[in-house]
Amino acid sequence: MQKVEVQLGQRSYPINIDTGFSALLASLADARQVVIVSNPTVAPLYLAKVNALFSNSPQHILIEDGEAFKTLASFEKIVSFLLKQGMSREVLLVALGGGVIGDLTGFVAASYQRGVRFLQIPTSLLSQVDSSVGGKTAVNHPLGKNMIGAFKQPEQVVISTATLTTLPEREFAAGMAEVIKYALLGDNAFLAWLLQHSEQIGQQQPDILAQMIQRCCLMKADIVSRDETEQGERALLNLGHTFGHAIEAFMGYGNWLHGEAVAVGMIMAAKLSAHRGWLSQHDVTLVSSALQCFGLPVTMPDAMHIAGFLPYMKTDKKVKHGQMRFVLLSKLGQATLVADVTERELLQVFG
Amino acid sequence: MQKVEVQLGQRSYPINIDTGFSALLASLADARQVVIVSNPTVAPLYLAKVNALFSNSPQHILIEDGEAFKTLASFEKIVSFLLKQGMSREVLLVALGGGVIGDLTGFVAASYQRGVRFLQIPTSLLSQVDSSVGGKTAVNHPLGKNMIGAFKQPEQVVISTATLTTLPEREFAAGMAEVIKYALLGDNAFLAWLLQHSEQIGQQQPDILAQMIQRCCLMKADIVSRDETEQGERALLNLGHTFGHAIEAFMGYGNWLHGEAVAVGMIMAAKLSAHRGWLSQHDVTLVSSALQCFGLPVTMPDAMHIAGFLPYMKTDKKVKHGQMRFVLLSKLGQATLVADVTERELLQVFG
Repeated sequence: MQKVEVQLGQRSYPINIDTGFSALLASLADARQVVIVSNPTVAPLYLAKVNALFSNSPQHILIEDGEAFKTLASFEKIVSFLLKQGMSREVLLVALGGGVIGDLTGFVAASYQRGVRFLQIPTSLLSQVDSSVGGKTAVNHPLGKNMIGAFKQPEQVVISTATLTTLPEREFAAGMAEVIKYALLGDNAFLAWLLQHSEQIGQQQPDILAQMIQRCCLMKADIVSRDETEQGERALLNLGHTFGHAIEAFMGYGNWLHGEAVAVGMIMAAKLSAHRGWLSQHDVTLVSSALQCFGLPVTMPDAMHIAGFLPYMKTDKKVKHGQMRFVLLSKLGQATLVADVTERELLQVFG
Repeated sequence: MQKVEVQLGQRSYPINIDTGFSALLASLADARQVVIVSNPTVAPLYLAKVNALFSNSPQHILIEDGEAFKTLASFEKIVSFLLKQGMSREVLLVALGGGVIGDLTGFVAASYQRGVRFLQIPTSLLSQVDSSVGGKTAVNHPLGKNMIGAFKQPEQVVISTATLTTLPEREFAAGMAEVIKYALLGDNAFLAWLLQHSEQIGQQQPDILAQMIQRCCLMKADIVSRDETEQGERALLNLGHTFGHAIEAFMGYGNWLHGEAVAVGMIMAAKLSAHRGWLSQHDVTLVSSALQCFGLPVTMPDAMHIAGFLPYMKTDKKVKHGQMRFVLLSKLGQATLVADVTERELLQVFG
């Protein structure tokens, strides 16, 4: 079993990575009231196994699968369920699913009766390496992704690599986009490691997956413990996300997977970085090859001209003093937040 | 001008009590993006005055007046407005109104882009002495009051006693319920002071009102700084509220004012305390007289038998280990949290 400790003072918690769910802390397993939030895809596979971890029978509620259901309406549906079931401020909410279930459940855990206990059991690669770590929770608004949310840390994250065996290939690839992101923004050696082990990763060798997931979680935990509420450094984790969120919103949530959109976003960030002379053309090609090697798209949707990105990028959460801010690469393995990108520069590079 | 400092480490902030709004901090007055949330009753009276405090013209959105609009739907309406107006994570949200506007705006400030700046300008007595202090924000759910919310501290609370001159008499009385609550739960000398000054309070003498409001804010700030997220002592501020919330929900939000319901709730808490031998019959009569002296009701609604309270009390946020918990009076001026009240005892006292 691999373990990563997220250091946040009194709110520190462990991430346990194993081939099953057995690492669950006793303080959570013995919770008096437990409600599991999942979706109709994940529940038939893992709900019974997760139920069995708890000493008091959990209740559960299923939310339809997909980013299109990460809404305030789903949030309200869960809250109504909790109230109808008479759940008190002591209830433990368990997110069993991917990033959508995790973000949604986390925001309910932050808000129900002004905050209740929260456990993450992420079942997709993307949520295991990224969204389940660090306490960002949210729902989408038709005008922007993750616009309503809270910082809510779980008490534990329990990761079973076995859940990846049931993950559709396309979603596994989408998760790899976030894995590659960590390499690009902070660890060039990790990029080499990923390319060396691409075959084992594709075959889902449990020990290789556990190592890969642990490395991502360590990097994220480090950044989060230094900058929990994104006053600075944490914004670097948004590499590729400003473009990516625009693609997701423009194409309609759920049509492009988040990781796919981020993959294209990273290529765009790399091209912008190359335009500034920070990356070579060879670097851009290397990024592109790495993404393609793991089955990810590298060109923006045909329907979307760069002008289509602008309205979304202007409502990005990183906007400050009215100025768009982008995470670019000062070199491979090192990201930097840039505030002087103009519409003109965007049109030059992508027009 | 009176001032109370709420001590919460890095999130400490001042409450300024004056006859106008001029105490606004420069760091807030100079905010680049400002959105004022108010209602159609308060805005015609004070919006222009508050607008003039800021160096950059604020925008504003009005939410219909009353507890019935402290909903997730109003929350969503404000979020949509902020997104349509292109408000970034730097926006300062200003709550200009009573408890409903404060609680609603505060929850938006906690959640919009995972948290933005927040200023409280409470214009009702109840919000000045209670709901604007301490960072509890929330919206109601049909199955329970304040069931969805967050702890979100403002950067300042600006109180003008002049706003009380335009407050309907019934609402002023409702605010006095919370004032009397402070005396009952922690300061018997304050109860004597209130009765001595009842005439000047009724006449709204500004210096007496400022003293009274300051005393309440001091008591609340003290408790909040020791127990921000209500792990213990802060629950004592709920004196009368378990019964009160049940009355509000049973009668339909907005039909009974919160303070009116709390007044009856405090009488019920006093009677339950007397049943346990903690208060004398004379004490109960004194509480009742004080409430009536300031125009408050002291008997539960005719339509509501004690059995009608139970479903609401069982979903109260203070419920722990499945047990209802009540704030009772161990003596006048001293409250205590009690976990062993049974349905049988409630029926004995109120049946």
